[in-house]
Amino acid sequence: MRTQPMHPSAQNARTAALLDRFRSVREATLRFTAPLSPEDMMVQSCPETSPVKWHLAHTTWFFETFVLCEFVAGYQSFDPHFRSLFNSYYRAVGEMPEKKLRSSFSRPSLDQILAYRRHVDAAIERLLCCIPDDESQRRIILGIEHEQQHLELAATDIKHAFFTNPLHPAYASARLRSQPLAGGLSGTAFAEAIAPPLLWLSFTPGSPLRPGIVEIGANLDPHELQAFVFDNETPRHCVYLAPFQLASREVTCAEYLAFIEDDGYSRPELWLSEGWDAVQANAWQAPLYWVRDSSTPSGWSVFTLLGFLPLGQISETPVCHLSYFEADAFARWSGYRLPTEFEWEYVATAGEDGLDRQSGAAPKEEPGSGRSLNNFIESGQLHPQPASVSLTQPQQLFGDVWEWTQSPYTGYPGYRPLPGALGEYNGKFMSSQMVLRGGSCVTPEAHIRATYRNFFPPSTRWQFSGLRLARDAS
Amino acid sequence: MRTQPMHPSAQNARTAALLDRFRSVREATLRFTAPLSPEDMMVQSCPETSPVKWHLAHTTWFFETFVLCEFVAGYQSFDPHFRSLFNSYYRAVGEMPEKKLRSSFSRPSLDQILAYRRHVDAAIERLLCCIPDDESQRRIILGIEHEQQHLELAATDIKHAFFTNPLHPAYASARLRSQPLAGGLSGTAFAEAIAPPLLWLSFTPGSPLRPGIVEIGANLDPHELQAFVFDNETPRHCVYLAPFQLASREVTCAEYLAFIEDDGYSRPELWLSEGWDAVQANAWQAPLYWVRDSSTPSGWSVFTLLGFLPLGQISETPVCHLSYFEADAFARWSGYRLPTEFEWEYVATAGEDGLDRQSGAAPKEEPGSGRSLNNFIESGQLHPQPASVSLTQPQQLFGDVWEWTQSPYTGYPGYRPLPGALGEYNGKFMSSQMVLRGGSCVTPEAHIRATYRNFFPPSTRWQFSGLRLARDAS
Amino acid sequence: MRTQPMHPSAQNARTAALLDRFRSVREATLRFTAPLSPEDMMVQSCPETSPVKWHLAHTTWFFETFVLCEFVAGYQSFDPHFRSLFNSYYRAVGEMPEKKLRSSFSRPSLDQILAYRRHVDAAIERLLCCIPDDESQRRIILGIEHEQQHLELAATDIKHAFFTNPLHPAYASARLRSQPLAGGLSGTAFAEAIAPPLLWLSFTPGSPLRPGIVEIGANLDPHELQAFVFDNETPRHCVYLAPFQLASREVTCAEYLAFIEDDGYSRPELWLSEGWDAVQANAWQAPLYWVRDSSTPSGWSVFTLLGFLPLGQISETPVCHLSYFEADAFARWSGYRLPTEFEWEYVATAGEDGLDRQSGAAPKEEPGSGRSLNNFIESGQLHPQPASVSLTQPQQLFGDVWEWTQSPYTGYPGYRPLPGALGEYNGKFMSSQMVLRGGSCVTPEAHIRATYRNFFPPSTRWQFSGLRLARDAS
Amino acid sequence: MRTQPMHPSAQNARTAALLDRFRSVREATLRFTAPLSPEDMMVQSCPETSPVKWHLAHTTWFFETFVLCEFVAGYQSFDPHFRSLFNSYYRAVGEMPEKKLRSSFSRPSLDQILAYRRHVDAAIERLLCCIPDDESQRRIILGIEHEQQHLELAATDIKHAFFTNPLHPAYASARLRSQPLAGGLSGTAFAEAIAPPLLWLSFTPGSPLRPGIVEIGANLDPHELQAFVFDNETPRHCVYLAPFQLASREVTCAEYLAFIEDDGYSRPELWLSEGWDAVQANAWQAPLYWVRDSSTPSGWSVFTLLGFLPLGQISETPVCHLSYFEADAFARWSGYRLPTEFEWEYVATAGEDGLDRQSGAAPKEEPGSGRSLNNFIESGQLHPQPASVSLTQPQQLFGDVWEWTQSPYTGYPGYRPLPGALGEYNGKFMSSQMVLRGGSCVTPEAHIRATYRNFFPPSTRWQFSGLRLARDAS
Repeated sequence: MRTQPMHPSAQNARTAALLDRFRSVREATLRFTAPLSPEDMMVQSCPETSPVKWHLAHTTWFFETFVLCEFVAGYQSFDPHFRSLFNSYYRAVGEMPEKKLRSSFSRPSLDQILAYRRHVDAAIERLLCCIPDDESQRRIILGIEHEQQHLELAATDIKHAFFTNPLHPAYASARLRSQPLAGGLSGTAFAEAIAPPLLWLSFTPGSPLRPGIVEIGANLDPHELQAFVFDNETPRHCVYLAPFQLASREVTCAEYLAFIEDDGYSRPELWLSEGWDAVQANAWQAPLYWVRDSSTPSGWSVFTLLGFLPLGQISETPVCHLSYFEADAFARWSGYRLPTEFEWEYVATAGEDGLDRQSGAAPKEEPGSGRSLNNFIESGQLHPQPASVSLTQPQQLFGDVWEWTQSPYTGYPGYRPLPGALGEYNGKFMSSQMVLRGGSCVTPEAHIRATYRNFFPPSTRWQFSGLRLARDAS
Repeated sequence: MRTQPMHPSAQNARTAALLDRFRSVREATLRFTAPLSPEDMMVQSCPETSPVKWHLAHTTWFFETFVLCEFVAGYQSFDPHFRSLFNSYYRAVGEMPEKKLRSSFSRPSLDQILAYRRHVDAAIERLLCCIPDDESQRRIILGIEHEQQHLELAATDIKHAFFTNPLHPAYASARLRSQPLAGGLSGTAFAEAIAPPLLWLSFTPGSPLRPGIVEIGANLDPHELQAFVFDNETPRHCVYLAPFQLASREVTCAEYLAFIEDDGYSRPELWLSEGWDAVQANAWQAPLYWVRDSSTPSGWSVFTLLGFLPLGQISETPVCHLSYFEADAFARWSGYRLPTEFEWEYVATAGEDGLDRQSGAAPKEEPGSGRSLNNFIESGQLHPQPASVSLTQPQQLFGDVWEWTQSPYTGYPGYRPLPGALGEYNGKFMSSQMVLRGGSCVTPEAHIRATYRNFFPPSTRWQFSGLRLARDAS
Repeated sequence: MRTQPMHPSAQNARTAALLDRFRSVREATLRFTAPLSPEDMMVQSCPETSPVKWHLAHTTWFFETFVLCEFVAGYQSFDPHFRSLFNSYYRAVGEMPEKKLRSSFSRPSLDQILAYRRHVDAAIERLLCCIPDDESQRRIILGIEHEQQHLELAATDIKHAFFTNPLHPAYASARLRSQPLAGGLSGTAFAEAIAPPLLWLSFTPGSPLRPGIVEIGANLDPHELQAFVFDNETPRHCVYLAPFQLASREVTCAEYLAFIEDDGYSRPELWLSEGWDAVQANAWQAPLYWVRDSSTPSGWSVFTLLGFLPLGQISETPVCHLSYFEADAFARWSGYRLPTEFEWEYVATAGEDGLDRQSGAAPKEEPGSGRSLNNFIESGQLHPQPASVSLTQPQQLFGDVWEWTQSPYTGYPGYRPLPGALGEYNGKFMSSQMVLRGGSCVTPEAHIRATYRNFFPPSTRWQFSGLRLARDAS
Repeated sequence: MRTQPMHPSAQNARTAALLDRFRSVREATLRFTAPLSPEDMMVQSCPETSPVKWHLAHTTWFFETFVLCEFVAGYQSFDPHFRSLFNSYYRAVGEMPEKKLRSSFSRPSLDQILAYRRHVDAAIERLLCCIPDDESQRRIILGIEHEQQHLELAATDIKHAFFTNPLHPAYASARLRSQPLAGGLSGTAFAEAIAPPLLWLSFTPGSPLRPGIVEIGANLDPHELQAFVFDNETPRHCVYLAPFQLASREVTCAEYLAFIEDDGYSRPELWLSEGWDAVQANAWQAPLYWVRDSSTPSGWSVFTLLGFLPLGQISETPVCHLSYFEADAFARWSGYRLPTEFEWEYVATAGEDGLDRQSGAAPKEEPGSGRSLNNFIESGQLHPQPASVSLTQPQQLFGDVWEWTQSPYTGYPGYRPLPGALGEYNGKFMSSQMVLRGGSCVTPEAHIRATYRNFFPPSTRWQFSGLRLARDAS
């Protein structure tokens, strides 16, 4: 399959591109954390989260452990203690501290972690300058994707940390005062935007010869170098899908408020049994970050990375920070349902909506404008935005909010995890979790694609998770 | 669809048959509980279980609530307090006591519960003698199926209760002394039986015109009267299945012991992350009911409804009382995998193995012998038995042990729960549970069928749950 | 000290008296449990309680373990499994089951337990007929006292069990229909009775030569035979007490209702920190067994061993089923305080109130009437009763409700537990518990005395526990 | 009582002295925290502890809330949010955040907290320059004592934080390298020191006229200005004490090791029931901070504020970080007992050992040397030290380790808490806690006195808590 050796100059170009990408991703992480103090980066406010400093260290550990220690002869580790200290859950690598202890890691200091990053960055850059073999390049790519995941987690974790702090500091407040968000809507813009009406787009999967049969998953070998996919996106395989309809955009806060005001949180018949238990146990009455506030017309304020906003100001934006149970209950209340992950992927990769069907990648920019069509972390919005109007294409498939699907997270037929410790990356979480699709407003744009499968337990709320409705074809 | 009215004599015959079935199922429950004292029937030994007395009452409540109160004008309830007292989880019916309080129901006494049963039985019989309308017949059928489920639960719950009691009484010991188990193997028979070698049977689903496409689920309207299926077995729908192989029989205790002795419970790489957490939290080292016992050659004794047996005596029987996590870890250790519920159903309904493909029902008897091929509760064995030899047909698909599949429990495409409170029967549990197929040695034979879907959380162990291996076609 | 051997006939008389007492106490237990079914005796409704059947067995186990097995050569135990099965917490005797498993002891059946009682009773009676040595007589006496404690526990435990049952059966209802409570007040009598006004009785402890010095504790050797005291009542020792005043009677329900209506349960300044945490965690709004009931004038109904009664009917009876935290908060709210256990004992053993100061025993009967002055279990009331009027003597010191004192439970100076396993009886609980004094309406009269120290953790509410106020001398 | 107005110059001198003391204590806190980074001061490693930054803020809040807001007209608070943010548990002041949220207070930053301290310090100094009235002086003194308590807590909390960090940083390591500990023993000194033999010192309390009667508690009015005591040290009252003997020094690590090696942690008969439960639940096998370490001769290393030390190096120092349960079990094992708090106080205030009986203060210095006899935080040792030799006087009564007494923490007869919110300081914790006496190696010397009562729940281990033995006079 790879019998033809690559021409040296092509190799040069490829590693040069990889070096650029490595630098860009590592810098993006630092840029995001720049407004945070060393103290901010210590906070671990709930069991799901980690301190931001830990994210800075763990992503570095990943490169050191899986690239430098394995592929660089004579590599001198920055500090041998870090091998266990910053291991998250890779048991094949060795021991690791309990997750909840991460908030006690005042040492190493942030300065030391930044030095650790520089040490590892330099080693990776040296490696890339020597045209490393394919496997080490693959590992570097995996490390880049891993860093992007943790950049998103840093954003969701600091949001939770600041919400937990009774002073409720805003991530973006200092920044807002000094410089406008790059391309970001102001609060006023939120207030003026109106989400377009929800339309139902119809899909009839399959071909005349093979009605209902679609191919799902990435057709790349996960061990291949060219384009990256996670092992859990493979192998590409056939799935039978009946005709269905998908909503043209995500569900908005205003729509979700109607559910709340129709006593949605008090009617057990709308909920899965496990979901109703969660509502009772946690006294849920609204999405995470919604706080009753009689000083606003809607009666609610919503905590965001830009601080508290009156609900009225963001009522047309996609509702987010929902558990699967809330997404499911809302769908039942509405009379519709959540899509399966296969329906979602089918729409995201094949249709009339201008997506690049071959690569399954998210569309990069508005034709002729150089401006992204999607709201990813690069937009600087740090919050979902109202959908655009379109009569024919689904909006917001990528970015804004992760969309809960009705699909439990399992291995695809023939799924094989990566060998060794890296096999623990995705495969061992295949129970009691649900698949989310499409990325969010804090996902790096280059990280997401149509075959990408995110997954969380159904009670999870601290991610930017919302929903899109579906229904069976009539 | 039902435009042709049924001829009166046919109606008579149908309700007469239903009456027979009703009586038979109600009697079966009482027969099973006969060796138990009123005190035995009070025990609730873990959160999953209920007291046997509660099962006697709750199944009666089901007939009273969903048949008599709705379809019999002027029905006088036995005791109006029972409407909430014996409600399990039907919120649309009203309030219910916390499950854990069931062990405090010393009143009503067992005598009163038996009187309650007679009261309701008489009313149902009167109703059936008057040729009730279709909907009330449907409800009676549902009540019969419900009673069968609770008969199985009574068996698993009293097993756990007796294991919890430090004296470890045996359900069957008194009976064993007075009368032989009908058709049951003695302990000696266990010891002599050898499970046949595990063979791989190959399946290539679909037709030449539609390769890979199979129909899954019951093609009956769940609201139809003729044959019963649960709402969660419908609608019948297409699924794509790649060629696969299925083991000819269930995994035995001896095979599972090899996993234990190969340190299966100490190697995190074999386990799902959530499963490993369960192993650690509960200090699992073997299936439920296996107890280290240096007095036996194998070093283990196993608690059964017949009391403790040395593992050596049952080593060729299917291993049971496994959680999904253990079944999954064993499969990973073996190099194979669990089947999907669709693979299982495909095999159980179509093939060369003599099953009645049209009805999807379990084969009733050995040709010409009048003896059931399968080990259900009616066999009186009360424990799984070694497989028979067959070179061409899968053995033990029905009875012996429930087989964990790798399929999470979800609604089929287009699934609609029953209307009203009965919609809470199956639909609201569709999260964080896994599907099991085929019934067990304590399932009533008439209750099971090829499309039947059982479901439990993956950490569940008190059911007779085991596994069968599968693998992709090479 | 015991140099003079006792005359044979005196010995005979002594053992004959002991035999009478043994029979009487054993019969009292059975008489109390007579209205209960075997199923009732299985219920264990909260961690503090045990099934009544277990009490029947454990008290028997106590005689078997500490008397028969040690002092009767060749004694054949009824069932060797019982030695560990019915051990409560005596680690020196051996292993014991977890307390919460007691509700799984359907076997041995009640019939077997009753046979166990008869077996042990016969052996004890045989032993007593042979004039046993002093130590075995001492052990039998201890067993009698132990049985009396468990009779009280059986009463409090079945009360909790019946309250937990959603049908709320009444212990006394069947009995009430068939025969009047011996000397018991009817519901009407409750309603008519008015508690006398609370008076302050003054005490100046000590003598002119030794002001403030009182002797506390029993002056008997706990190893002596003559009169029984527990080890924790010894040694008698000096305590300094300043002058104080004690309320003439216990606090009534009506008085406690005023605390509730003054928002007592919502004002943290009235509570110990640990008590306020308990209020919040358990959502306490009233004593245990008080249930809001808009159908009664007071708005409350109270569950008793006679079933639910409107609060108005018992408002003049002592409030009971209070935790220490509630008793303490009430006292703080009232402007007074709880007495110390030393103040209480001083009053109960020395003064002008007609108590027998020498023995410190509870007064046995109204002079010339043959009727007990106190409300113990023998009264058949099964609930505290209003105080009588007295201008000079404290009422209700004995019986009605246990009185929480402000004294933590510790060993007296020079305290030595009994040797061996019996040393675990009282000594090992001397942390984080508070002393209660005086017995309750379900205490056997012969069990209580002025030096008797009961003890429970401060959050305990299922005992008949109330309070009496005290204050410093002005 | 205070009818004579003080002469102005005396007032000047008194407030000048108070100002000195205020400055000195506030500076001591900052000096202790100087080696810590802002990140170190964020860690909250268990529920008992708080972040050091929080201690810096809360002590400042105390001065602002109870002095400046109440006694300085027109005082401008530094930040109005701090009133609730840094409230610990004073419900009368208003709401407060849950304790566990303190680790999320990345904002305000350490810099802001230090500015807050300067703001409040300046205001207090201005107030003191104006000769404030007595009540505000009293409050400032209370704030000083409060600050001293939190300095000790900062030391114990950072010790726990550094132990929790898998890198186990040492508080003193940087300091050790740059400058010698003022008067501190080096590691070598530890190793050479030998604790003197344990002697029994006899005490016969009381006078010939009033044998056994001693006065306990401070005879100062807690509302008086002259000398400070906490409300819980008053009122002074009589207690009866029998003759007893007290050990001449605290129990050493070597002595405690003998208990461990005699299977002390495996013998339930040595433990209180609640203590044995704690041993089992927490798998205690040694004091907190003892870690098995096969690289040292003793098999143990002990974490200290100076880092890990081999047990052998500190075996002659007092054992510390014991729970009450461990202290009690050790005493039972040894055949002796713990002293009561009254015995302890009696010895510490009256005898032949050179203590200042009038004030009950700890002895300040070695006669003629200017060097303190005791090991307080000012010694810079930061760990208990071996006792000195004395044949007649008890050693280590003050400093080194807090000594668990057998006395539960209750109010003295006639105890009245301070009025208002300050009444929550000590009184509301009077349940389920035990008294400790004498201060530790991280207590400020000026803070402790003979009547001082510290208190903690009996399972507490993170304080420098050890024990001294006592026994009854033979």
